[in-house]
Amino acid sequence: MDPILIIDCHGHYTTAPDAHNLWRVSEVAAFNAGEPFPAYPVISDEEIIDTIENNQLRLQRERRADMTIFSPRASAMEHHVGDEHVSVAWARACNDLIARVVTLFPDNFVGVCQLPQSPGVPVERALAELERCVNELGFVGLNLNPDPSGGWWQGPPLTDVSWYPMYEKMVELDVPAMIHVSASCNPNFHATGAYYINADTTAFMQLLQGDLFSDFPDLRLIIPHGGGAVPYHWGRYRGLADMLKKPPLAQHLMKNVFFDTCVYHQPGIDLLFEVIDLDNILFGSEMMGAVRGIDPETGHYFDDTKRYVDALGLTSAKSEQVYSGNARRVFPRLHDVLNDRGSK
Amino acid sequence: MDPILIIDCHGHYTTAPDAHNLWRVSEVAAFNAGEPFPAYPVISDEEIIDTIENNQLRLQRERRADMTIFSPRASAMEHHVGDEHVSVAWARACNDLIARVVTLFPDNFVGVCQLPQSPGVPVERALAELERCVNELGFVGLNLNPDPSGGWWQGPPLTDVSWYPMYEKMVELDVPAMIHVSASCNPNFHATGAYYINADTTAFMQLLQGDLFSDFPDLRLIIPHGGGAVPYHWGRYRGLADMLKKPPLAQHLMKNVFFDTCVYHQPGIDLLFEVIDLDNILFGSEMMGAVRGIDPETGHYFDDTKRYVDALGLTSAKSEQVYSGNARRVFPRLHDVLNDRGSK
Repeated sequence: MDPILIIDCHGHYTTAPDAHNLWRVSEVAAFNAGEPFPAYPVISDEEIIDTIENNQLRLQRERRADMTIFSPRASAMEHHVGDEHVSVAWARACNDLIARVVTLFPDNFVGVCQLPQSPGVPVERALAELERCVNELGFVGLNLNPDPSGGWWQGPPLTDVSWYPMYEKMVELDVPAMIHVSASCNPNFHATGAYYINADTTAFMQLLQGDLFSDFPDLRLIIPHGGGAVPYHWGRYRGLADMLKKPPLAQHLMKNVFFDTCVYHQPGIDLLFEVIDLDNILFGSEMMGAVRGIDPETGHYFDDTKRYVDALGLTSAKSEQVYSGNARRVFPRLHDVLNDRGSK
Repeated sequence: MDPILIIDCHGHYTTAPDAHNLWRVSEVAAFNAGEPFPAYPVISDEEIIDTIENNQLRLQRERRADMTIFSPRASAMEHHVGDEHVSVAWARACNDLIARVVTLFPDNFVGVCQLPQSPGVPVERALAELERCVNELGFVGLNLNPDPSGGWWQGPPLTDVSWYPMYEKMVELDVPAMIHVSASCNPNFHATGAYYINADTTAFMQLLQGDLFSDFPDLRLIIPHGGGAVPYHWGRYRGLADMLKKPPLAQHLMKNVFFDTCVYHQPGIDLLFEVIDLDNILFGSEMMGAVRGIDPETGHYFDDTKRYVDALGLTSAKSEQVYSGNARRVFPRLHDVLNDRGSK
């Protein structure tokens, strides 16, 4: 066994039982027909166990990770579909399902919630579900969609005060958000090949232009997929901070912004670790997610990001930081869960 | 002097005379007032010489580059402003100004044109200006805006057949396009910090999803800013090509797609050259452009990309390829110009 606790900060329940996905179809159909939402189906523990053991848990074991910070399938959040009521019922169903996974596999998964965002609806309306997930279901964080319009980018930037009630609640609950869009309705943007990566880059630049962390010094945001284009263009962002008369990025953003390691080849991971301070990198794989195949150049799964991180040859202390120390710091409620359990 | 001809494939006339920029203001004002466009002002050779000698030419000399493939200021193309007639008159004015720069400094600049694109207007309508620029002004390429809506991404992807008349004309004229958006009207996207980079990533993924180069095997597209996020996420794109049942990227895209070196720090350039075949990389600096300051970590300008490329320690043959050989291959009309001149 690996002596270091390995926490994957970025996993989605992309293998949820069919009944759950079919309920979503019927929910949307009911909305379109102006009818009440159908009753949520009975899903047995066995069905859930089956979908997890044969997928995420199998990969966790094969790749020797210990725990996944687990959230509903990002592309299925679909905040652009239906209205606020559709989003509320769907978020609740998805989060309850995550809670069941966590209850069934408490050593292997911890929950992060989907919010019931909806285009044009004040973000305040999503606070109740966040509180329910954190206070009642024991979740440790949330996924915040910076573009609930699904690829049309019609809402305000993340630094706009209309988002502030969410940030206030996050600080109060001491939970971080991963900034994560959902499916793209815009034919210009392939979801996992363009929209996700663009959203990461966009979010970082919005934060760079603003002064959000002056207002919320304790707010913590994770930008997934290795920070989008940001580490590759780190010189550009350092230069833009200077041109925009902002403090250096280390002060301006990097006490509050974190990147995961969802970069699917060795040179990308090498660059990430060369450019970004180790304090700001959280191990993540996005499994089972965007890219599920095997890299013919290596013979290993593209998304087996632990191989790339291991290949860096970090010291034990630095490995511990990337694999779990940083996650425990960014997700204090996870740290508490682990401490209560007497984990490493 | 450097023994290799150094061609910068990505320079914009960001320092155009005030009279030119003021004409644009009055053109848009006239459009809004429903009045005829004003006459274009008289701009003396001296004014043009002044703006070039103190800026781009000075930097060319300081950085020991020989020639810049020069196009109108990208952020000022503003295809979303006004209507087709506004775009036609503005593109013509901008291209004529580039032609004057090239006439005044034929050893140092060669022209690439801005197209009179306009949202919703068929791209065929831009062909006449492209032909004028190539056949009458001696330009060697064009900038193609994949999002004339200015950050709202309301048109079709680059693989849509509605773009085909442009590709047919490009093949006929044997000119490549740089895929380059203009200013962003969407408050979510900072122009040089998010919109440009996102557009690069988006364009590449559109090409990956499609089969454009089956229809146009001789078409050549340059994706600027080091290919956006693409080289950093090269494993993701290789994996997505596999998932989408496309050929490997080397066959599917990389006979036709090229990246420039507008990446403003050494680790980014290192990654670009590690991941992308040397045949597909064209030296570029985007000067004077997005980031004009000096990097406090190096004491040199962020956009002095030649320093980063030189630091790679390429062989002379490989340097020649990146600094001019690839540009001569991708821009055959530039190659002809240089050959006529008996250049290196």
